[in-house]
Parts: sequence; structure tokens; C-alpha cells
Amino acid sequence: MQHTVIFEPDGCRGTCEDQSNLLAVARRYGIDLESPCGGTQVCGKCAVKLEQDAVSAEVCEQEKNLLSPDDLQQGYRLACCTEVKGDLVAFIPEKSRRTQQVILENGRTTPCSLHPAVRLVFLELDKPSMGDSRDDSRRIVDGLHAAGITGELTIDYQVLRHLPTIVRAGRWNLTIGLWQEKEIVFAVPGRAERMYGVAIDIGTTTIAGFLGALHSGAIIAQNSLTNSQVQYGDDVISRISCCMLEDDGLEKLHRAILADINRLIERMATAAGISLNEIVDLTIVFNTVMHHIFLGISPDALGRSPFISATRRALDIKARDLGIAINSGCYAHCLPIEAGFVGADNVAVLLAENACNNEPVQLLIDIGTNGEINVGNRERMLSASCATGPAFEGAQIKHGMRAAEGAIERVSIDSVSKEPSVQIIGGQQPQTGKAPARAKGICGSGIIDVAAELFKAGLVLADGRFDKSAACARLRPDANGKYEYVLAWAHETMTGQDIVITQKDIRAIQLAKSALYAGIKLLMRRLGIDKVDTVLLAGAFGSYINVESALVIGLFPDCALEDVVVVGNAAGEGAKRALFDVGQRKEAARIAAFVEFIETAAEADFATHFADAMFFPHRSDRFPHVQHLLDAIPGIQTSAIKEVSSSKR
Amino acid sequence: MQHTVIFEPDGCRGTCEDQSNLLAVARRYGIDLESPCGGTQVCGKCAVKLEQDAVSAEVCEQEKNLLSPDDLQQGYRLACCTEVKGDLVAFIPEKSRRTQQVILENGRTTPCSLHPAVRLVFLELDKPSMGDSRDDSRRIVDGLHAAGITGELTIDYQVLRHLPTIVRAGRWNLTIGLWQEKEIVFAVPGRAERMYGVAIDIGTTTIAGFLGALHSGAIIAQNSLTNSQVQYGDDVISRISCCMLEDDGLEKLHRAILADINRLIERMATAAGISLNEIVDLTIVFNTVMHHIFLGISPDALGRSPFISATRRALDIKARDLGIAINSGCYAHCLPIEAGFVGADNVAVLLAENACNNEPVQLLIDIGTNGEINVGNRERMLSASCATGPAFEGAQIKHGMRAAEGAIERVSIDSVSKEPSVQIIGGQQPQTGKAPARAKGICGSGIIDVAAELFKAGLVLADGRFDKSAACARLRPDANGKYEYVLAWAHETMTGQDIVITQKDIRAIQLAKSALYAGIKLLMRRLGIDKVDTVLLAGAFGSYINVESALVIGLFPDCALEDVVVVGNAAGEGAKRALFDVGQRKEAARIAAFVEFIETAAEADFATHFADAMFFPHRSDRFPHVQHLLDAIPGIQTSAIKEVSSSKR
Repeated sequence: MQHTVIFEPDGCRGTCEDQSNLLAVARRYGIDLESPCGGTQVCGKCAVKLEQDAVSAEVCEQEKNLLSPDDLQQGYRLACCTEVKGDLVAFIPEKSRRTQQVILENGRTTPCSLHPAVRLVFLELDKPSMGDSRDDSRRIVDGLHAAGITGELTIDYQVLRHLPTIVRAGRWNLTIGLWQEKEIVFAVPGRAERMYGVAIDIGTTTIAGFLGALHSGAIIAQNSLTNSQVQYGDDVISRISCCMLEDDGLEKLHRAILADINRLIERMATAAGISLNEIVDLTIVFNTVMHHIFLGISPDALGRSPFISATRRALDIKARDLGIAINSGCYAHCLPIEAGFVGADNVAVLLAENACNNEPVQLLIDIGTNGEINVGNRERMLSASCATGPAFEGAQIKHGMRAAEGAIERVSIDSVSKEPSVQIIGGQQPQTGKAPARAKGICGSGIIDVAAELFKAGLVLADGRFDKSAACARLRPDANGKYEYVLAWAHETMTGQDIVITQKDIRAIQLAKSALYAGIKLLMRRLGIDKVDTVLLAGAFGSYINVESALVIGLFPDCALEDVVVVGNAAGEGAKRALFDVGQRKEAARIAAFVEFIETAAEADFATHFADAMFFPHRSDRFPHVQHLLDAIPGIQTSAIKEVSSSKR
Repeated sequence: MQHTVIFEPDGCRGTCEDQSNLLAVARRYGIDLESPCGGTQVCGKCAVKLEQDAVSAEVCEQEKNLLSPDDLQQGYRLACCTEVKGDLVAFIPEKSRRTQQVILENGRTTPCSLHPAVRLVFLELDKPSMGDSRDDSRRIVDGLHAAGITGELTIDYQVLRHLPTIVRAGRWNLTIGLWQEKEIVFAVPGRAERMYGVAIDIGTTTIAGFLGALHSGAIIAQNSLTNSQVQYGDDVISRISCCMLEDDGLEKLHRAILADINRLIERMATAAGISLNEIVDLTIVFNTVMHHIFLGISPDALGRSPFISATRRALDIKARDLGIAINSGCYAHCLPIEAGFVGADNVAVLLAENACNNEPVQLLIDIGTNGEINVGNRERMLSASCATGPAFEGAQIKHGMRAAEGAIERVSIDSVSKEPSVQIIGGQQPQTGKAPARAKGICGSGIIDVAAELFKAGLVLADGRFDKSAACARLRPDANGKYEYVLAWAHETMTGQDIVITQKDIRAIQLAKSALYAGIKLLMRRLGIDKVDTVLLAGAFGSYINVESALVIGLFPDCALEDVVVVGNAAGEGAKRALFDVGQRKEAARIAAFVEFIETAAEADFATHFADAMFFPHRSDRFPHVQHLLDAIPGIQTSAIKEVSSSKR
């Protein structure tokens, strides 16, 4: 006689023979039910709530000892003590689940579970004897089966090599690391309760790393460094060229990124006081070019139409095959990439923001050297890549720098005196008594500010030219007659040189923002919308941006300021989620397949959109939410610009 | 409506919906049916014979074109053109099977199929375009699916790295190597039709290798070399000691064996004129200690009771993880080991001889430095390991040497004159005109001969002592008063020294043969038999042995000479079978589980058996098949020996 068992709240349905053990049935159907004692009726963890008439009638001694009177009253039984006697519904409470919801709430998106790809299993094995001469690996696999882990199990070769030593060092007690419930990727003598993982976001310019405790869900260290590939070129196109044109170009870039990652991991491990061997998992997100170079795959085909990648699917590669200095039997998980230059980092942003499950139509912008944009909601999500270049990260700007001590991060310019006031990172050190830092250069958020403020002060015209006729002591021609604005005089700076914003800098900002804006417009047109509900600004740079300044220069289409949300390093956040919860890796695969990639540069009128967006804020689009600021610009009629462009078409 | 389909001659049974395509049904149930065109009705290879009323009635145009009138007459149809309309039996003829029986008939055992673990699949892919921007790996996987290869496919990381270059070099035509129908382990541009594999038998003293063409089933090169671990000890026990006692002992031995294997593979590849990259599979057999050292696993626990190995199951390990210089994405397959010192080599002997499927009770002896013995048939098979030591391979014998030029391989001694006549390897060179080789030493078969001949001539007594009273000019005391027999005088030898057989040599032969004999007797007792139907002598050494001499010294229990079969390197033969036919790997796993390992040294009366077997031919057992030779021994009454031993018990 067969019975049907439904496990709630998941709704998973199975069938079993009469008098089957309920725990065994749950295991067979892969139900997430705790049973650390392996079903030997001693731990009391497999409590489930069920209809009493469909199971063995008697509550046994063990259940009386292990369940509280309250639990018994409410109809809880231990799955390991229960035989199925009829069709039934078994409710598995949160406390009986192996996977528990605990971590990574960032307020905006749904929390994710702590359910790493690797889990620790402590085994107490029988000692071998003449009557029990099972080999070491058989003994371990039998131990895992007894603990309820079924299915075919493999053992990493490097683990196998050291198995005899490990089991004997722990006197037949050991802890194994089980990857994806199918491979033993490490083993240590005795009981281990801690394990760590690293999430890495490889940007074209910056690499960010997070060291997480996989046993608790806490981030215990984070760090970042400059991608040393910058010495071979600032953007992805120049990196591809380097791979193609230089001798061993790919090999050099590949080694550079691996050395960076190893350095980053080592720094974090040192800071947290853990050993590299305790790091047992790694998730990585990157754009497609960084992905290929990281893996040592030629990015040649990525750089030429039709922009074909070697692979898009998620990859699990042994750390030792890559040469990454974590526990050698463990895997690096590369999240899936989407298409063209839109890589795993964009998938990670969508993952972190849960954007493909949301109702409101969102615009998600990940501003980096390679900018990714997404527009859509749970019904449809379009994405594209924009060649913004590294201007927003401070590169290709005369006095540009990364957001570090001495960087000018905020600028305002008085509309009358045309005098600037600036805020410098480390410029106020109230606690330390250390002398305030003096200006060394200007970082991304300062660059957006200075462009917006120069425009608002009437020093820069809507088409990006300096207004040479403006009465301002700080506006001056350089040796070649090109104008520049002095943001800080030599005596105020750490370098002893004037810090200036050049005409070329303004052009770089225009190019970067118009690439972004044109891409966004084309995606919105594809989706048939002319406004979005919210704008999410991601990327380390996005965190410090002054949203009003961004709208004044027309970085993205008009939107109420309160609907613009700064979400920080969302790609890194997505990598962290995939590190802590293996279920998020499945979700990432779903996202990668769901999102539609649009090759915006191939759209017929991309050039027109791009040219229109070169203007501050735009040749024709209106920005009602900052119109009052635009109206206040001295000597300029923004409406006039609009008319000119309209009449031209 | 569901129909049942039975595929003959395998008898595999499946069900399908009405009007299902028969090829699709066959694939779903993993039926071994050719369809190189991927079911596109152009190749005509999937012909099956079936009842016409249970399938789509009309023979279609393609079938008329692709099948002969004869085939149509006999009821053949193409599976790809046929819809199932009722329950049916489909007979798959030999010619429609992907796996065909062609190779490795050695006369005695069943032939095995050519069905390697890796197969070549040629793909003609669509070029990418803006409308078809599938990534390279997706394009390949889709191509494989179209060719009827279903299931989840993975791509080796090193293959993935070079994929973009390979597909473009071949203008979207490429050949992939598919391992076990699930992993792409290599890829080459264009069409490749050749692939090679290596089978290796790692003995304690000698390593033998075979280079096979996996596309044809032919052995195209073979070679052997001395295991360079011999510098660290002659037998497995001394190798274990070296691993335990010396600094980096394991590492040194591990590296030595890997270097040997790489040297062996390279020699064979050079001889056959192929590149190492064309070698895409490797099977290895060895005893358990060689297995552990090869894998770099400490053999410590193997050397101490209860003799536990790290793992017994078959292993597939990436060649690059081992450091073996074949195609780096490919696997080395280590056959399963049995227990204690009885390793994959013994499994391979049983595999080669099909011994676990035979009716007659066989004694299989693999004589090497570590001797393995098996007694049984398809109902039960017992096995044991005997510490014979390397005497039979020429080591630990004063003038012992390997079976190479200058080795004395046959000896007879005149019973009257006590003068020897010897046969030397290379001693007669009728064709070449080269001077005949002179004696350098004595190899295994010569050693057995000389012991038997000295005994038959009355120069050595039944207890192994030289009969000092014998009148023989060649029998003399050495400087320490120990007797020795001069087999060749200095002027006859290449070394300019007398070649002698010492008392110590005779003792070494006694110890080796009694270890073997005692083990065999204990297995026979366990099985409840006092005679076997046939004796199989395996091992390189076994091939040259004089069976009569072997019986005279009591190497194994009495048997009719015509029932003793010399089978050569059966372990190597088993490794070859596993190389050519992946099905043989499953059979090997079955054998490893089926055979019962007996720890003969732990049997209570092992010492008594051992002591009895020290005598020539034995203290008490009779040897009717050579009794006439024993009766002719001058001055000795073998029956008297028997009486003495009987009265002693």
C-alpha cells in the first residue's frame, strides 16, 4: 500500500510504502530537514507537525524525552520515530530546517538564507579492525550515509591523498567539507566548526573583496585594490587590444589579475586572523572581458561583432586549477554572464536588488569603467553595456584620482563670486588631532559636482565649452590657449600645484554621461516607457554621488530625487549573496537567462541619441525635478536650447 | 496511451507515449544504437528489426533509399523514421550498435568490445551572427545534443580556455573528445579521427606499458622499464619503510614512479610517431602499495595490521592533477583494488582471464615481487597475497638478473656427470652474424630450473642444503666455507667471473616458493578442495618458466602439466581491456567486490604450512605428475621424507 506525503511549507510531494520511516521518506525526496544524529533518535532535531491518525499511534519514549510537552501538545513528532500509516501532510517548522533564514538583510531586498555550497559534517567513525577492514574513504562515505547524506559521493584527489593521515590524527574523528552535497573537498582531524568564504567583484579598475564566515553569515573583513591590469590599458577595449597585440598579452593580464586576487585574499585573511586553508569557497563577479581574462580565455571574439563569449554559464573551477591560494580542493564559483560585455557583475546587481522579481519599473545603473544599465521589472528586464570609460573613477581626468585621502569629493561654486568651496576626504580630522589632509586631486563624485557647479555658475555652457567671456579670476587659458578652472591654488594643495578642471576633462565627462544616457533612453524606448518608477545607482562610485548634480548634468533621465536610491557596490553584494546561499546561484542562472541583452550601439539612431545627450543636461529632454536650478543659471536660457534643437530636427 | 518497448538482444524495457519516435525512446533508455546524423534521417545507421504492426505503417522514402531491399524484406526499419503505435520488441543488430565487438581476442577468454571511455565527435557548427549570438560552449553543447548526446555536459576548464581559438581555427568545424558521455575533455579544430590511450602495469620491480589506438583497437607500441623505486628497496615492505622513515620518503618515491611513467609514455609515443596530446586515456593497475605511492598517499596503514587502504574504489583523476604528460584534460583511470596488498593488478588478472565467470576451479598465480594467488570459479573466488620477495625476478640472488641479453634462462644438469648445459638469452644469433652473448647472470626461469636440476641431480637435498659429500668438481666451499655450485666458469662468462648458485640463493628460492605454496594451500582449504582443474601462471616471469621444474621444486600443488597454462602479463592484459572497453571497468568493480580476500598470514597454522613447503618439493604433499622424476633422484628416497614428516606430526 502506497501513501502520499506532502511536506509543507514547500509543498513537496512524495509517495512511500506503508510503515515507511518518515525521516527516510523526507531524505529520499531531498527535504531540508535537520537530523545531525543520523536518525538514531538521540538529537530531537527532526521535529515535524503532522496529523496523528496517519502515523504510528504511540508517542515513543524518545519523543517524550526530546520534545517539550508543548510541542507534543501541538502535534509535533520526531520524523525518525514515526512510521507513515496513511496519506499525510507534514509541516516542517523553521527550527527543524537545516537551512535557516538569518542573514544579509539590507533593508531593501528580501533576506537570503545561510546555506553555503560547502557544509561541515563531523564524523565519529568506528576504528578499523581485522573484522572491519573497510578502507578509509568507504568508512567516511558510510559515515555520511548514516548521517542521512545520500547519493553518490566523490572525494577530491588532494583530500584523498591526505585521508589516511587525517583520520588517524583525529583518532577516527574528523570533519569533512561537503560541496553541493556531492563532493568531499576537504577534511580536517577532529571537530571543526568554522569555515570561511570570499566574494570578489573584479572591476575593470577596482577589485573589491569580502571575507565571510560561512558558519555565521558575518562579513569579517573587506578590502579592495586597484586592478593591476590598468597598466595595460584603462578600459576593456584596450585590455582586449593588449591580449591580441602584445606577446603573451593574455598571459600577462591573466597572471596580473590572479596575483591581485591572491593578494586581496591574503590581506583579508591576515586582517581576520584566519589561515588561507580555512577559506573553502569563493564567488566571483566581473564583466565579460574581466571574466575571460581571469579564466585565461582569449577575449578576442568579445571585441568583434557579433561579440561572442566563450561561455556564459556559471562555472565551478577548482581553486588549484586557477592558482588561487585558498583550500586547494575547493571551488571558485564564477557567476553566469549575460551577453556581450554585460557580465556576471550585472547579474549580481540584479540578484542583490531582486530586480527581476519586483513590480515597479526600475532603472539600475552600475557605474564603473564599463557601465551597465538595466530597465524593467519582473515581467521583462532589458540590459545594455555602455562604454563610459573611466572618467567617473577619476581616470582620464587631469587631476583625477580614486576616492582616497586628499581627494576633493564635494564641490560647490558660488554663483556670484564664482569661488569654489570644496570638501576633501580626510579634510577634517576632529577626533585624531592629525592635521587635515590637503587636496591632492578630485575623485568621481567631485567630478560630477564640479561639472554641475561650473554649469550652474554659468562658467561652462550647455554644449560643454568654457564661457571665456565670464568674469572669473579662476578661469584662465593654459599654455596652449585651452581654458581651465582652478579648483584649488597651489598653496592650498598637497602637491604644490594648482588643481584645475580642463576643457578636456569636461569633454571626458560629457562623453561618459552621454554614453550612459543614450543607452538608457534606447532601453526605455524598447520597453515602451518614457519614465521609470525608481533609479538605483550602484557601483562604489555611485555611493558618493550627489544626485542633484547628476541630474543637473543629465547623467540619467529626470526623476524625483527621492526616487533615486544609492545602493553601493551591488555587484559585490550579489557575489556575497551567492557566497552565503547556494540557492542564490540558481537564482543568478535564472536571471542570466531572463534578462534580454540589447546591443544599444547597434541601434540605428544611437549616434543621434548620443549627440543629444552630450549637452548639459540634454539637447531636448526636460528635467522638471531640477528645472528651478537650470532656470537660475546666469545668462542662459535652457528653454532656448530646447527650441534650437527642436527646430534643427 | 502508453506502449512498452523491449530492446533485444539486451532485453532492456521502456515505456513511451503513443506515436513516440523510436530513436528518441532508444536514447531515453540509453540503448546502444548508432545515429551519427543525430536523427535527421540521412545516415541510415539506426536500422532495427521490428514487428510492423506496432509502428507507423508506411515505409518512408528515406527508409527506401537508405535500407537495402533485403533489409526491408526482413523487417528492418530506421528507428529515426518510426513511430511507436503499440507494444513492440525491437531487435538491434550488431551493425547498428555503436559498440562493436572487434578486438582483444586472446583465444582463451571472451573478446571484449572497442568502446573506449573517450569518443570523438565531429561537429559542424553554425557560424555566429548578430541573430545567433550563442556563446561557444553553448553552440558546442547544442551541437552534441543534436547529435543525440543527451544529459548534462560539462567542459574541462583547460578545454574551455582554448575553445574560442579552436572553434575559429577550424572555421566552426571541430572534433571534441567526450569522456563517459558527460565531459568534454579535449577539442581540436577540424576533423580528427585518431586517438590513443595507454595501459600501464606498475609492478614493484618492473613497469610495463602498452600504447593502444583507441580508434582501431590495435596495440601500436609497448615498452617496459625498471621501477626506479628499486633504489629505495626491493619489495613493498621496504618501500613502506622508506616512506615512513626517510625525510620526504613518500614524495621521493611518488616522484620516481611518475617520472618513470612519463618516460615510458614518451618512449612509446616516440616509437609510434604520435604526439603526447593525442593520448587521451590511461588505465593503470598495480598492487596496493604501488597504488598508494603512485597517488602520493601514505602507505603507512597498509603496512600495519589491520592493513587498511585509503581507498579501494576505482579512481578517475585528471592527468594534470597527477602530473602525467598526456592530454591535460583527460583522465587516468586507476582500477579498483581489492584489500591488503592485493591490488588492481590482481583484479586485472581476473578480468583478463574472465576467471570469475568460469565453471572450472582455477588457481591463478601472478608471480612478481609481490605474488598474488586466486583460487575459485564463478561461484566463489578467494585471493591472497604472498610475500615471495624478488627472488623469482632475479633480485636477492647472487648472480641474479632480469631476463635480458646474457641471462641464463634454461639450465639442465646431467645426473651422472653433474655438468650443466645452459641456454643464454641472445646466446644464439643465427640470423645476425653477431657474436653470441656470453653469460652475465641468471634470470627467474633459470633460477627455477637450476634449483630443480640441482635437486634432481642429488646436489641439493630435499631440505635445501647442498650435499657436500657429492662428487662434483663444480660444488665447492667459498671463502667462508659456504657451498656453491659453479654454473659457468669465468672464461665462459662476459663478466670474467664464475657464475655460481650459493646456499643463500637456494634458501631465497625456498622462502619464495614456500610463501606461495602455503598461501595456495590455505586458500584451497578455505574453499574445501584438494585439487584445482587448471593452473594459470601469470606475470612476465611466469611466461618463461619450465612448468616441470616448477613442479619438481614444489612451486604450486601437483597438477597435470597440460593443465598448467602460461598466460603472460595478464595484469597488463586486464589494463588493456579496461582501456579499450569502458564496460570492462564496470566488470572490474564487480570483480573487486566479488573476490574474497584472505589474510593467509593470519591463519593459525600458516607457519606449519610454510615450514612444510620449504622442502623440495614438499615435506608431505605428493606430486604424482613428476613422481617419476623424483624417483630418479640419486641417493634419495622421497618416500622416506614423507614418512619422517608424517611420524613427526
